[in-house]
Amino acid sequence: MEYAAYITGFADGEGSFSVSFNSRSKLRVGIEIRPSFAIAQNRASLSVLEEIRDYFGCGNIRYSAGDNTYKYEVRSINDLTKIIIPHFVRFPLRTAKSKDFENFKAICEMIMQNRHRDPVYLGQIIDLALSMNPSGKRKYSKTQLLQFVTR
Amino acid sequence: MEYAAYITGFADGEGSFSVSFNSRSKLRVGIEIRPSFAIAQNRASLSVLEEIRDYFGCGNIRYSAGDNTYKYEVRSINDLTKIIIPHFVRFPLRTAKSKDFENFKAICEMIMQNRHRDPVYLGQIIDLALSMNPSGKRKYSKTQLLQFVTR
Repeated sequence: MEYAAYITGFADGEGSFSVSFNSRSKLRVGIEIRPSFAIAQNRASLSVLEEIRDYFGCGNIRYSAGDNTYKYEVRSINDLTKIIIPHFVRFPLRTAKSKDFENFKAICEMIMQNRHRDPVYLGQIIDLALSMNPSGKRKYSKTQLLQFVTR
Repeated sequence: MEYAAYITGFADGEGSFSVSFNSRSKLRVGIEIRPSFAIAQNRASLSVLEEIRDYFGCGNIRYSAGDNTYKYEVRSINDLTKIIIPHFVRFPLRTAKSKDFENFKAICEMIMQNRHRDPVYLGQIIDLALSMNPSGKRKYSKTQLLQFVTR
């Protein structure tokens, strides 16, 4: 329990919940949704990421040459909804990141229910995702994303 | 216990242990040592700092105009040695920051034992402090600090 609470504290500072989009002409709705949970650290603290990966029993660590850091990342929707999200429900975040988490959770639930294939729900997902704190540069604007949905 | 472990996790990401020095011609050894524990957050997560301050029952929160953040800070050597350090002994840090903490702890213990007034120990304190990860720009080099000690 103590280690679980430690992870929440650490993630509240260092973690990020993000939802990115990719244009995919082969998909019926023309867009792919990629939710991910990630924590980045430099080389000196790589062992902490390994401990967290082993604790959750999912996700991968990869080296990011761009900023010379290591990133623990969970992208599988199954792992996110069955392992990562329940962890942060049981051990809640306390910073403003908790708002991002609520949107992230709602998006993952809609994906698990296959609602993201329905343009109406996809519009909701886009709204929720765009109201989250961006963890990097946004690839598409809301207008562009909605064009993918409705084309 | 869970909240205590959360704080350690959060501090492992967002906290800093630092020891700064000030020239003080009036002191016998010519130098003042200022250890501090701090956590900075932006406005949206100010409440987390208030919770942590209330949990520890020491330290202050102040606004830092330079980077538009709020900083919870503990500077009192009594509060550091009686409240902050025992917390992180009981709930250990896991990142590379734990090495900074060990140096910080050793320095605070020497100060509590009044050894920092002895130039020999002060040299040790300077070595320990300079091997810590700098939380900002260093004001003095080791050579300059040793000049304050030995003049």
